[in-house]
Amino acid sequence: MPNDYLSLRPIGIDTYHENVAYLHRDCELYRAEGFQALSKIEISANGNRILAVLNVVDDSMIVTPSELGLSQQAFTQFGIDQGCMVKVAHAEPPESMDAVRRKINGERLSQHDFTNIAKDISESRYSKMEMAAFLVAAGQTSLDRDEILYLTRAMVESGDRLDWQESVVVDKHCIGGIPGNRTSMLIVPIVAAHGMLMPKTSSRAITSPAGTADTMELLANVNLEPEKLYEIVHHERGCVAWGGTAHLAPVDDLLISVERPLGIDSQGQMVASILSKKIAAGSSHLLIDIPVGPTAKVRHMRQALALRKLFEYVGDQLNLHLEVVITDGRQPIGRGIGPALEARDVLQVLENNPDAPSDLRQKALQLAGRIIEFDPDVRGGQGFAIARDILDSGRAIAKMESIINAQGRVDDPKLTPGHLSHEVLAKQSGFVIDVNNLQMAKIARMAGAPMDKHAGVDLVKKLGDPVKKGEVLYHIYAEFPSDFNFAKNLCKQATGYTIGDVDEIPISFVAF
Amino acid sequence: MPNDYLSLRPIGIDTYHENVAYLHRDCELYRAEGFQALSKIEISANGNRILAVLNVVDDSMIVTPSELGLSQQAFTQFGIDQGCMVKVAHAEPPESMDAVRRKINGERLSQHDFTNIAKDISESRYSKMEMAAFLVAAGQTSLDRDEILYLTRAMVESGDRLDWQESVVVDKHCIGGIPGNRTSMLIVPIVAAHGMLMPKTSSRAITSPAGTADTMELLANVNLEPEKLYEIVHHERGCVAWGGTAHLAPVDDLLISVERPLGIDSQGQMVASILSKKIAAGSSHLLIDIPVGPTAKVRHMRQALALRKLFEYVGDQLNLHLEVVITDGRQPIGRGIGPALEARDVLQVLENNPDAPSDLRQKALQLAGRIIEFDPDVRGGQGFAIARDILDSGRAIAKMESIINAQGRVDDPKLTPGHLSHEVLAKQSGFVIDVNNLQMAKIARMAGAPMDKHAGVDLVKKLGDPVKKGEVLYHIYAEFPSDFNFAKNLCKQATGYTIGDVDEIPISFVAF
Repeated sequence: MPNDYLSLRPIGIDTYHENVAYLHRDCELYRAEGFQALSKIEISANGNRILAVLNVVDDSMIVTPSELGLSQQAFTQFGIDQGCMVKVAHAEPPESMDAVRRKINGERLSQHDFTNIAKDISESRYSKMEMAAFLVAAGQTSLDRDEILYLTRAMVESGDRLDWQESVVVDKHCIGGIPGNRTSMLIVPIVAAHGMLMPKTSSRAITSPAGTADTMELLANVNLEPEKLYEIVHHERGCVAWGGTAHLAPVDDLLISVERPLGIDSQGQMVASILSKKIAAGSSHLLIDIPVGPTAKVRHMRQALALRKLFEYVGDQLNLHLEVVITDGRQPIGRGIGPALEARDVLQVLENNPDAPSDLRQKALQLAGRIIEFDPDVRGGQGFAIARDILDSGRAIAKMESIINAQGRVDDPKLTPGHLSHEVLAKQSGFVIDVNNLQMAKIARMAGAPMDKHAGVDLVKKLGDPVKKGEVLYHIYAEFPSDFNFAKNLCKQATGYTIGDVDEIPISFVAF
Repeated sequence: MPNDYLSLRPIGIDTYHENVAYLHRDCELYRAEGFQALSKIEISANGNRILAVLNVVDDSMIVTPSELGLSQQAFTQFGIDQGCMVKVAHAEPPESMDAVRRKINGERLSQHDFTNIAKDISESRYSKMEMAAFLVAAGQTSLDRDEILYLTRAMVESGDRLDWQESVVVDKHCIGGIPGNRTSMLIVPIVAAHGMLMPKTSSRAITSPAGTADTMELLANVNLEPEKLYEIVHHERGCVAWGGTAHLAPVDDLLISVERPLGIDSQGQMVASILSKKIAAGSSHLLIDIPVGPTAKVRHMRQALALRKLFEYVGDQLNLHLEVVITDGRQPIGRGIGPALEARDVLQVLENNPDAPSDLRQKALQLAGRIIEFDPDVRGGQGFAIARDILDSGRAIAKMESIINAQGRVDDPKLTPGHLSHEVLAKQSGFVIDVNNLQMAKIARMAGAPMDKHAGVDLVKKLGDPVKKGEVLYHIYAEFPSDFNFAKNLCKQATGYTIGDVDEIPISFVAF
């Protein structure tokens, strides 16, 4: 064994977007203490290098003093075989942390700074702590619109870009926060049936009870390699796939893995996150949906307008044809919250079922109409009618079936809710004057959504509905007793519904 | 086995100030994925509760699907025996994170907010990411002086307080950044010999090449329980001990474990850190040393003055008699950098050895003099002469011997430098016009200090000295070949010395 080397060993621990190295406390060569627990080390072999946070191990079953362990993702990223000899050195903090410290001190950063930060993050040179420092420093008040532009560009450049070889490639994105808002699965077939190219790559839910990818997955395969995606989209004019296979703006995913547990959500970061993903996905025309309501992400019209300007500024600079709609975010959209329940709502709308939730149908038509108006041949104001015709005539569901077949149909899809169910009843008579988006999402998540696709919440009453004491407000569904109890306990603390007088029903913001 | 429980297992991994829980991916009960890797969970048993970051394990040698593993510190803190049945639940982010988010948004926080944050941190409810978010949010520009006061108070209240039962309890603290600045080991015996109570509790080095505790440890036991400390101090009027056993302002230690690897160092955080530790240690009179120089922590006199006001404001509000001296921080103090080399310098000064480094002697006398003037019976301006008399007469070394005996003398202390040595030579003739504090500290650290007590740097030339090409500027000492190579490589990049013309020697700031 060469004098300066340790034997590499993969450790079966998933440390989720942070590289961790395991060194035995008695390791003579480097005397683990000198490296300080939780400071970073650099591991190298055959010209490959990786940075990792250090954990010190006292159990030779995990690593022996002559071994260096790496957590799963770090081992994969390093790309060196088990048992190979690796060299360990003190790691300097990533160079771009200087820029982060300048940001903390209130300095404005350049394109060059943001590019270096994105590069270091994408190469896993940042620990979670360092990413948190960057996110907070770049928080709410301290990125100006040019810095947001620089960050967006840097995030796009950190990964691959899809090229659809067409001049009009449309997409839509909602800034989130409204449970049940599953419009993409309606808009894609409508817009694709109109003939426009709409290759929708969606995320899975992170802190929400369902993402479009989680929901579509109940009906079709969503894990499509880029080649397959190109083939389907060129044939069908649309798709509803998971975006994770395409390596689009990977820095965004890493930052989100820190941002979400911290519960911080800055506007600048959000704009950069959304636009970088869409540009990397090859969009030329983008519709942004900003729901406004007392429990939505955006609570006041003035904030929505400021956010719209920000999207427009960055989008214009990046040559994206971007439009923003501000919509009613006072309550969840549709009835179901959770993948299976939302898929059921979507199918009811596509099937023109008279029981289909009308708010979901209306919103999908409104947004699809705006996208159809990106078509140079469509007269301004005609989009909604075209979208409605496509839906009512059955062309939308036919297109959806065709897309499902192309992606790979799930045989006999199960859209039934979980077998454990609980009814939440009105404690008084009156009118529903508030349905809290945050609380309903939290209850659905506690019930097991989105990992458990059949868990969630099914709303019976909506804003403005009259209720009698003892009537059912909503159902909770779950499949696992522990989740079911988590959800019921949460619901005991607060149902998420407020019952009041008819004149307390809040008026809608005008959507435009 | 009860239905909802997992068997507790300690995992031999030291995750350094962050609680980590290990759950097997196939754990049926909680289906690990639902908890999301690196989000937090709450573990409870017998009324004990603990929050931990979740790592997902795929290796049943580490944990089986029916077990829950806890990292070393988390297991100790939880206080439940191995094999006991524990319950796992989703953990909500700590409530005080709301205040952190308000701080990120630029709000001013209240005493109540800081108290809750300190409480949650001291109860290990914060992940490293969350602490990083707090530190950055509270960074350089965004804590006003009242907020610094609130934070200081909250940190004091997070731990225990020593009570010396006397009205004058003196202490000193240097804000750091100057290698070799080992004045405490001189000031304590001088001031104690004068009869004042000076119970010095020091830290070990974290990112510097030596702390007072690391250096004193070569001569005497520094790990003293509070009872033993009281006994020694009441008998000797002084001590030089490690402060870690007394549970003083523990939140400060936790924040430092995040702040240091991030390399962020805000003034507000520093003032709160220093003053909370000193108040918890029972000081009534405190002398703060702010060195100023181009590679010191404070680089301009205007910054030093602003920092002085901040110390004075917070100290006054907390009823501390506080004085600030601004000193020459243009270069390291003394010759040695590293525990053994610094101990040697200290003993030379105590022994009135004519070869003793005069800058160390002068600085120690200056500071000791200022502390002696806290004595109501000493006339203003007389402190320096009193301190010099105590040192010159041998009363200081006699007191030091007595303190060493009381703490527990190290028999036959070894102060020889490491056996691997390297001479760094002048590449040209001229005058030393700069000795870079940061680079000299870094070289000493790379050589192995402070973990390896005999490693470090020994300066031969100091600022203003004439040098001839090929003369020795300093020696590097190490005991381990890998450390020795790290240090030599670093030194090849930059020696830390600048040789120039006589008129380029920077003038000293006037110390006052």
